[in-house]
Amino acid sequence: MYTISSAYQTHALLCFAFILMGNSDYVYPDRRCPHRVAVPPPQPFFKSFKNSLKETFFPDDPLRQFKNKPPSRKFMLGLQYFLPILEWGPRYSFEFLKADLISGITIASLAIPQGISYAKLANLPPILGLYSSFIPPLIYAMMGSSRDLAVGTVAVASLLMASMLGDKVNAAENPTLYLHLALTATFFAGLLQASLGLLRLGFIVDFLSHATIVGFMAGAATVVILQQLKGVLGLERFTHSTDIISVLRSVFSQTHEWRWESGVLGIGFLFFLLSTRYISKRRPKLFWISAMAPLTSVILGSLLVYLTHAEKHGVQVIGNLKKGLNPPSFGDFVFTSSYLSTAMQTGMVTGIIALAEGIAVGRSFAMFKQYHIDGNKEMVAIGTMNIVGSCFSCYLTTGPFSRSAVNYNAGCKTAMSNVIMAIALMFTLLFLTPLFHYTPLVVLSAIIMAAMLGLIDYEAAIHLWKVDKFDFMVCMGAFLGVVFASVEIGLVIAVAVSVLRLLLFVARPRTFVLGNIPNSTIYRNVEQYPGTNSVPGILILEIDAPIYFANASYLRERISRWIDEEEDRLKSAGETSLQYVILYMSAVGNIDTSGISMLEEVKKTTDRRGLKLVLANPGAEVMKKLNKSKFIETIGQEWIYLTVGEAVEACHYKLHTCKPDSTDEEPQPWNNV
Amino acid sequence: MYTISSAYQTHALLCFAFILMGNSDYVYPDRRCPHRVAVPPPQPFFKSFKNSLKETFFPDDPLRQFKNKPPSRKFMLGLQYFLPILEWGPRYSFEFLKADLISGITIASLAIPQGISYAKLANLPPILGLYSSFIPPLIYAMMGSSRDLAVGTVAVASLLMASMLGDKVNAAENPTLYLHLALTATFFAGLLQASLGLLRLGFIVDFLSHATIVGFMAGAATVVILQQLKGVLGLERFTHSTDIISVLRSVFSQTHEWRWESGVLGIGFLFFLLSTRYISKRRPKLFWISAMAPLTSVILGSLLVYLTHAEKHGVQVIGNLKKGLNPPSFGDFVFTSSYLSTAMQTGMVTGIIALAEGIAVGRSFAMFKQYHIDGNKEMVAIGTMNIVGSCFSCYLTTGPFSRSAVNYNAGCKTAMSNVIMAIALMFTLLFLTPLFHYTPLVVLSAIIMAAMLGLIDYEAAIHLWKVDKFDFMVCMGAFLGVVFASVEIGLVIAVAVSVLRLLLFVARPRTFVLGNIPNSTIYRNVEQYPGTNSVPGILILEIDAPIYFANASYLRERISRWIDEEEDRLKSAGETSLQYVILYMSAVGNIDTSGISMLEEVKKTTDRRGLKLVLANPGAEVMKKLNKSKFIETIGQEWIYLTVGEAVEACHYKLHTCKPDSTDEEPQPWNNV
Repeated sequence: MYTISSAYQTHALLCFAFILMGNSDYVYPDRRCPHRVAVPPPQPFFKSFKNSLKETFFPDDPLRQFKNKPPSRKFMLGLQYFLPILEWGPRYSFEFLKADLISGITIASLAIPQGISYAKLANLPPILGLYSSFIPPLIYAMMGSSRDLAVGTVAVASLLMASMLGDKVNAAENPTLYLHLALTATFFAGLLQASLGLLRLGFIVDFLSHATIVGFMAGAATVVILQQLKGVLGLERFTHSTDIISVLRSVFSQTHEWRWESGVLGIGFLFFLLSTRYISKRRPKLFWISAMAPLTSVILGSLLVYLTHAEKHGVQVIGNLKKGLNPPSFGDFVFTSSYLSTAMQTGMVTGIIALAEGIAVGRSFAMFKQYHIDGNKEMVAIGTMNIVGSCFSCYLTTGPFSRSAVNYNAGCKTAMSNVIMAIALMFTLLFLTPLFHYTPLVVLSAIIMAAMLGLIDYEAAIHLWKVDKFDFMVCMGAFLGVVFASVEIGLVIAVAVSVLRLLLFVARPRTFVLGNIPNSTIYRNVEQYPGTNSVPGILILEIDAPIYFANASYLRERISRWIDEEEDRLKSAGETSLQYVILYMSAVGNIDTSGISMLEEVKKTTDRRGLKLVLANPGAEVMKKLNKSKFIETIGQEWIYLTVGEAVEACHYKLHTCKPDSTDEEPQPWNNV
Repeated sequence: MYTISSAYQTHALLCFAFILMGNSDYVYPDRRCPHRVAVPPPQPFFKSFKNSLKETFFPDDPLRQFKNKPPSRKFMLGLQYFLPILEWGPRYSFEFLKADLISGITIASLAIPQGISYAKLANLPPILGLYSSFIPPLIYAMMGSSRDLAVGTVAVASLLMASMLGDKVNAAENPTLYLHLALTATFFAGLLQASLGLLRLGFIVDFLSHATIVGFMAGAATVVILQQLKGVLGLERFTHSTDIISVLRSVFSQTHEWRWESGVLGIGFLFFLLSTRYISKRRPKLFWISAMAPLTSVILGSLLVYLTHAEKHGVQVIGNLKKGLNPPSFGDFVFTSSYLSTAMQTGMVTGIIALAEGIAVGRSFAMFKQYHIDGNKEMVAIGTMNIVGSCFSCYLTTGPFSRSAVNYNAGCKTAMSNVIMAIALMFTLLFLTPLFHYTPLVVLSAIIMAAMLGLIDYEAAIHLWKVDKFDFMVCMGAFLGVVFASVEIGLVIAVAVSVLRLLLFVARPRTFVLGNIPNSTIYRNVEQYPGTNSVPGILILEIDAPIYFANASYLRERISRWIDEEEDRLKSAGETSLQYVILYMSAVGNIDTSGISMLEEVKKTTDRRGLKLVLANPGAEVMKKLNKSKFIETIGQEWIYLTVGEAVEACHYKLHTCKPDSTDEEPQPWNNV
């Protein structure tokens, strides 16, 4: 077997032979010609500023397709950019329509009971849930770039809205003001969502990590399920808090008020819904069974109540739903100062949460079907649909996971399925609302509970624990915060812990000692590669993060501790004392002025101890800054090497020829060789 | 010249010859034996958790000296840890005392006028400035680990206290409450400082970067100088705001109130102080001239007023100062809820600022004299001296730069110089306070202005502009915020911008294309090294930051854009189409679960495009997580290489022998060779 490693072995043997023969010139043959580390060509300030702005805000380079096109084509492309329907509309075929018709009707059958349930969860009139599945899907169908997203209200944002607005206005005592505040909050949510998209600030949503979302969703689902105990047990009085302790106290302090009729009905329907879901999960082709189950439950429940007159025996029903389409509501916004901040705050928090869900759902399905979704464009679409929706009595909508999954399974082809759903909802609103009079609230509770159980993703939590303990902590922080304190507090905990982790990563970068991998010029972390050999007289340290103000003083202390420990170790082992410290800077992506001061201090410290500081492979940005701050002159260009291997070789040469301050001629830059 | 590179050249030539001869087995000889990337040996959860806790909170390993010592020695070391005086006290010599005596008296002569001036700046009774230079230095002398820090009040924290407390209580209308609030704030500041030290959270101070401090100090100095216009011009009425616009409007709206006597005196003394400073700067041996100048000015000014009775011609004087030592004040703390939050907030902000200054000053002088300072221990010392001080009528103290520099220049040897200063202050308080009756306020203003001019470090700002534009922006943000808005706003702007920079660094990591450096197996950034050659059919990308939730979706988009662009380029150039994408992960220090999902998605995308994903040099932490999440199995262990060179070689071999899904036997781990 002839390997590179054995090539080195041969070379090493040859060297050894030459040493024995006293010819040291062969042994360190390339000392005069190592590769030189290049300072990147200087760039004018504005060009580099423009570049970094572009990388920050336009990483997807959306204007690429506009290049070298005539103006009329550019205009058309621009229109298509904001209204994707202009792009896929002309190619729309009858085949597509058939598929979209089936999926549209399927999601409509889910949208009606879910819409009513979630509106109840938000303490809003049930009819609002139906309104919200009529206007927003139409807007999304024109502007959205996802083919699978089904628009509608979501449980978590509904609950969050109820809890945040409920702190300010009691929905039972002042329903009109509460409703108007909810619409105003929706307006602000839409405004925020659209502006985030227009300002290309979509990456803010990325700060909600996967772990945060898993924990937050599970916590919110638990809270929502607990809230449903009110409906299932037929309780009249119930706590306004959402934390588990208040809810359980409220439930168990009034056991004598529990209604067995309601309870039996609720558990029965929950069992029915869960079994249909189980069937559909086992056989994905039978997706329609679980998709139709909620509407079936509503119809069965309503019939049951109508026939048995159970509404007179403690089973609460929806009651009258007003016939007719969405009334306009842009005159209802509350902009008075005493409520404005509540509405804005609620809008912002719910808007971000809804956005995160919508974007994540859109992205997942786009990945399955292998097309591309533009996050910023999606934000503009979701924001616009909420702004327009809030003007027509719709509250916060996004792309709920459950409904979109049904849409996908039902074989939808384009956003047209949303249009079909909207048309079905229109018919319902115009003609069918009286049919829901006898629908028992307990069925709605069962529908919500069944949907929420699917959001508790304990398998994901186990996966987090296995792979990354810290992510698991973030997840549990969000979960416990939501369950034991409140939805907002859980969210704040999770985001704070996640950001803290990022800051800690920068504040406490790791430093490794590198050792030589036998028979090679490769140097790697001795902890990861336990078979590496240390190089006598040379300490090689790798720094694995950018050097910034936040870690500069830590790194200074840590590097001097490494040197202390290495000297102690060498002394006690009676080995050659330390002569060189090589800092391997491959992973140092950037450095700021505090970082440069730190390097200057390290240089002074090593000088004082009689050690030579050597840098290996500083990157482009680092070299630029080191050059501008004259640190390259301080350390000497000849002490900066392209690889650790070359640095070690040079140190070795100087060690063995006993010329620590060598006056060799300047090494040639490699590209002149 | 025989170099490693030419060794490769020879090898390449040989290979070429063998290709011509049709013997492909020599050409890619080492395909069966590349180095294998090691998964680090598994560590039990608690051990790795303990390690990372230790690295985070105890990077300086303070317990190292306690190892293997008998219990009595351990106890003594522990006492010495908290009271360093027990360590250096027994070794204290008469030589040291002589040096400390001189420096102690020198800093006392500075402490008296500065103390009175800064107390005026904080809207507190002048005598508090003297009290604050008596008790805290005694505490610090026992607990502090710096030999050069001179304890005292500082201008910026004084101004900040005046502005924050002034928002709540008017110092002129309610001086007693204001004083009590100031003492309470000092107590909280001390509590915070000591707890940060005890909880090993010293790194929070590191989040104030050098750039922030330069801008903030210059801004605060400007604001303080502007405030002195009141004293210099002898104005009675003056704005309570600190921003430049309010102050200038206040000054120029009452030009008829300007007092020329006061103005002449002020400018005269300012000129005197600045000239002494200039002399001392030119000849460091004459440091005592500038050190004595403030006291000389006070004496001269007082004599002048006493002799000319200028106090009757509009020159304001200090007036009566109460004789006697610090009265106890622990009964005066205000813990009523209406003021508690103000006191706590003020204490926190001023405490952090004072801490940052004290630590930075201590560290700078320790570096000059080559001894070590423990940041967390310093925090405990500074915190304790403020807690004790606040119980004895002292307001916030730290280690001011100006006084410590004089101490250092005067040749202090230990913290004993602080004790000498305290004794001198004690004598002043007991016997000499009546002498300050006629001291004109304008002299105090001149002293403050002279001190503040030294804090405007425009050279540092120019250096920041040259080296790092972003740091310059942070600096100017702090400066302009302080000057045009308020001290707190400036500080918040600077810290927010700095932290945003850290987050942006993580959220928008850079990705580089790597190319081959001619005649070597080294691969480097093509932008930094413009002479590199691209490898046909292979795209090599370097990611230069950890892969976290905050950048996972950005990286996914950016990587797919790199692939798009490369394919476009190859197509238009008519070259070999892309076959392999190598991700060089040396700089990826860590990865979280969102990052792993991102890699899984990239793998799917590349598979779909018919490309092969290859990883080069993932680090220990990354390999551990990839292993746990089974991503190594997904990508295949044989597609992870130790270096880019080996990865390229392997790809080349497979490209040329047309076996994209090779069924080679598993490569051997290198350490078994």
